[in-house]
Amino acid sequence: MISEKAILLISCQDSSGIVAEISHFISTYNGNIIHSDQHNDDASNTFFMRIEWNLNGFTIPKEKIAQAFEAIAIKFNMSWELEFSSEKTKMAIFVSKYDHCLYELLLRNRAGELDADIVQIISNHEDARKIAEYFDIPYEVFKITKETKKEQEDREIELLDSKGADLIVLARYMQVLSPEFEEHFRNRIINIHHSFLPAFIGAKPYHQAYARGVKIIGATCHYVTEDLDQGPIIAQDVSRISHRDTVEDLVTKGKNLEKLVLSRGVKLHLQHKVHVFGNKTVVFD
Amino acid sequence: MISEKAILLISCQDSSGIVAEISHFISTYNGNIIHSDQHNDDASNTFFMRIEWNLNGFTIPKEKIAQAFEAIAIKFNMSWELEFSSEKTKMAIFVSKYDHCLYELLLRNRAGELDADIVQIISNHEDARKIAEYFDIPYEVFKITKETKKEQEDREIELLDSKGADLIVLARYMQVLSPEFEEHFRNRIINIHHSFLPAFIGAKPYHQAYARGVKIIGATCHYVTEDLDQGPIIAQDVSRISHRDTVEDLVTKGKNLEKLVLSRGVKLHLQHKVHVFGNKTVVFD
Amino acid sequence: MISEKAILLISCQDSSGIVAEISHFISTYNGNIIHSDQHNDDASNTFFMRIEWNLNGFTIPKEKIAQAFEAIAIKFNMSWELEFSSEKTKMAIFVSKYDHCLYELLLRNRAGELDADIVQIISNHEDARKIAEYFDIPYEVFKITKETKKEQEDREIELLDSKGADLIVLARYMQVLSPEFEEHFRNRIINIHHSFLPAFIGAKPYHQAYARGVKIIGATCHYVTEDLDQGPIIAQDVSRISHRDTVEDLVTKGKNLEKLVLSRGVKLHLQHKVHVFGNKTVVFD
Amino acid sequence: MISEKAILLISCQDSSGIVAEISHFISTYNGNIIHSDQHNDDASNTFFMRIEWNLNGFTIPKEKIAQAFEAIAIKFNMSWELEFSSEKTKMAIFVSKYDHCLYELLLRNRAGELDADIVQIISNHEDARKIAEYFDIPYEVFKITKETKKEQEDREIELLDSKGADLIVLARYMQVLSPEFEEHFRNRIINIHHSFLPAFIGAKPYHQAYARGVKIIGATCHYVTEDLDQGPIIAQDVSRISHRDTVEDLVTKGKNLEKLVLSRGVKLHLQHKVHVFGNKTVVFD
Repeated sequence: MISEKAILLISCQDSSGIVAEISHFISTYNGNIIHSDQHNDDASNTFFMRIEWNLNGFTIPKEKIAQAFEAIAIKFNMSWELEFSSEKTKMAIFVSKYDHCLYELLLRNRAGELDADIVQIISNHEDARKIAEYFDIPYEVFKITKETKKEQEDREIELLDSKGADLIVLARYMQVLSPEFEEHFRNRIINIHHSFLPAFIGAKPYHQAYARGVKIIGATCHYVTEDLDQGPIIAQDVSRISHRDTVEDLVTKGKNLEKLVLSRGVKLHLQHKVHVFGNKTVVFD
Repeated sequence: MISEKAILLISCQDSSGIVAEISHFISTYNGNIIHSDQHNDDASNTFFMRIEWNLNGFTIPKEKIAQAFEAIAIKFNMSWELEFSSEKTKMAIFVSKYDHCLYELLLRNRAGELDADIVQIISNHEDARKIAEYFDIPYEVFKITKETKKEQEDREIELLDSKGADLIVLARYMQVLSPEFEEHFRNRIINIHHSFLPAFIGAKPYHQAYARGVKIIGATCHYVTEDLDQGPIIAQDVSRISHRDTVEDLVTKGKNLEKLVLSRGVKLHLQHKVHVFGNKTVVFD
Repeated sequence: MISEKAILLISCQDSSGIVAEISHFISTYNGNIIHSDQHNDDASNTFFMRIEWNLNGFTIPKEKIAQAFEAIAIKFNMSWELEFSSEKTKMAIFVSKYDHCLYELLLRNRAGELDADIVQIISNHEDARKIAEYFDIPYEVFKITKETKKEQEDREIELLDSKGADLIVLARYMQVLSPEFEEHFRNRIINIHHSFLPAFIGAKPYHQAYARGVKIIGATCHYVTEDLDQGPIIAQDVSRISHRDTVEDLVTKGKNLEKLVLSRGVKLHLQHKVHVFGNKTVVFD
Repeated sequence: MISEKAILLISCQDSSGIVAEISHFISTYNGNIIHSDQHNDDASNTFFMRIEWNLNGFTIPKEKIAQAFEAIAIKFNMSWELEFSSEKTKMAIFVSKYDHCLYELLLRNRAGELDADIVQIISNHEDARKIAEYFDIPYEVFKITKETKKEQEDREIELLDSKGADLIVLARYMQVLSPEFEEHFRNRIINIHHSFLPAFIGAKPYHQAYARGVKIIGATCHYVTEDLDQGPIIAQDVSRISHRDTVEDLVTKGKNLEKLVLSRGVKLHLQHKVHVFGNKTVVFD
């Protein structure tokens, strides 16, 4: 039997005694810390922490932990979040026509590597419906035109909220989201950009990479913000190329990179290992 | 002005409340934790910690910290080590004829990246004397034959002890050390093996790699133990090769890998980030 | 319209004039060379070549090229193979319970990246039948016991031959093949071993890696020979690990590595870019 | 005894029969091809080739090969270059204050890995003089101000020409060269830029990378052209970073990357493996 774990994600202004208070809180109620990671951002004097402990034997009932912890949180003016290993994140996936990232997420989730509850797949095309059926996940198509965008996004939000979606993953979804949509899911929309950002921002990055003659291509997993391709980066990786690679080869190599990097970023988010901090991230991997 | 830091390296049987006591100790005396990392080895129920705090404003004088901490150490039956950022490790380098690792260590140290006090270079050949002179470090040659080995090692130990050497780095030193020498500097001798251990143990690993037709070669930085090439691994890295590479090409690619991996391992040791644990390491990088 | 290409794979004793004769042959009949790669193994004085030319405008009809080339082949006592880009390799996949490599091959093939004709999936279990159905590929189960092995392998060979299978891919197939089976498909069986060979030969390599405390794990794609895990290596890759990774984490990281490395090896074979040469390979990538 | 080799670097409009003529030329005079690599750029219909053969037994005397080859070159309207393995490239190194790239080049050259004839070190500072003396290479300081730049560059060109310098390597040289200087050594000036171009063009790339919060940093070795950081890329590599890395850590990691990537690019140039083609390169590695 795997016992349940609690995970605290904390950030606040740095000061002496924070770790002592938090670890004292956990040990007082007989919790045993399994993982703990912290970071101090010197420039802004900000303290970040992720602490995970076993609830087996912990003397505060699960539903009262937040309340019990609040005094410490208030004392240090913390931003904080309490998660439990048994409560799976409800995740929705957006996809257009390329299905390699979609498959990768669905397969890794089924294999238990991602451990999310995938509640919905949304697309602007019919193409991936058969995949959704095979994996037994609801699939809905919202066609997007300039005129219908606002209205369709409202319907998407309604559907996603009704399913309790906590995380939106854009798995090569080729529509730009409106600032309103982005704000509704602030820091909870993850995108894969098919370049090593900030190189090759915008459209057709593989064509740009080919034209520039780079020897390495990349992919970037990031949170979506109002500014296109400017959001906080969670994960990046690269792949070597040469003059022998055509644009089509770059696309193929890139697809294998995209699915890897997107999965890595999504997994880190699902494990509650990512702090967003301004336009950057603190990733406790 | 860079203020001084204290670093505690701890291992003990895991139990509830360890982190709370340590962090309470530090905050009680007004220390501010800069870095903290911990690990629990489930199989053996062992707890590992590395905690670093600022001594600026810490109310226990530096020379009394160890004494003050002892009560906690005894309570949890800890193995522990207290280090200070201002106290440079005294390091000796052993070298034979290949000088690429020697140069790398000397240059990185001079650039401030390693931050050791290199007190002695020892060789079984005259070849590297000019290098030692250029970097202004004492150089001593101890010729080793089967007959003189014991006697020469005794003289080496005497010299190293007189210089206060805390760390011995074998920078492609081609003599096997005796168990007695190894025991004298237990867990303080770092070697670079020119293969991806445990592949290609023993002599001429590049020739072995060539014969086997591998597509990747590696290098391994490890602590020296009685069993040749079996000691705890600190760092490893690899490099791609192809059928076009001759044995000589492997040697050249390997040399560039060796100097990288050895430097990385030595740096981790100098930063007190490595716990030796049986035949393995816990590396808090 | 993509025009058809011919590919010649050649090996023979090295001597002056080989390239001249081959390129003269192609240009005489108005072929245009698209790719050409060659290698000279000095130790054995062996010459290897892969040359690819456009058949558009080539004045020898496709079915007579082999015959026309034979004079040159005989003159230099060549081992040679003539392939055409339009003729897809017929590939069979063997799988046991882990399905990550199977999915990867099926998805990459469907996306056009592998470009094989997958004629059969064979397993010793029922588990993957649904996958085969989804991808519309014949699936057959052959239960293997010590007693039935010989008989079952004979039936497998019969089935594979009837389908014209040119390549057998062991996608985490957990049965050892008999020397007779191996001989029947000599140099046409590709396996993925879940370690960086020659490290951790045999069973449970991730457990071996964990016990040894390595900092990098690997996967190896190789041709199957009589000697277990000793066959010619086609491709290898690695992934970083740390003390934080449990054996289960190694298995998960390893699975993502295995599917990558196996796909890469299979792709190289399908593109006729691999020469087997004793226990090694020449890979023209 | 290592016999001498001839190397032909060719580019021209693609057409049928080029390889046949070149290889016929070599075999007619009893040359044995050791390496041959070619590439066809489809978009521009350009053919590139690098072919290397043994002069041992070649019946045209070395000094008459160019003349003998000219008929073929004219027929196909080739750009071409004939090199000999015995004739070392005369290389000059420019450096400012950071000396890590300078040391790396000097050490790799001394170890026989680069195999250049380093004829001059030029700097705008006195700092590296001792290094030049240790390696026994002429060192000259040219202070550069806005007013003196033109005049100083003229003197530099005069010195470099007098030494017969064929290749200028900017080993973290912090002055921008004038278009006139660049033109004098067109495609023969190699620079190391401390970012993964085209990301972070211009000054202080590590500060830019830190501010953007990327998870990977890079270095780029390229030929210098009039447009700053826009020249043809020869080699690139990357290194992982995390939120724990300060700007100073990026600088340190970057320095180790720079020396690696610069050495790789310089080595490829010295081996005559690089074709410049518009703003890109064809690298036959």
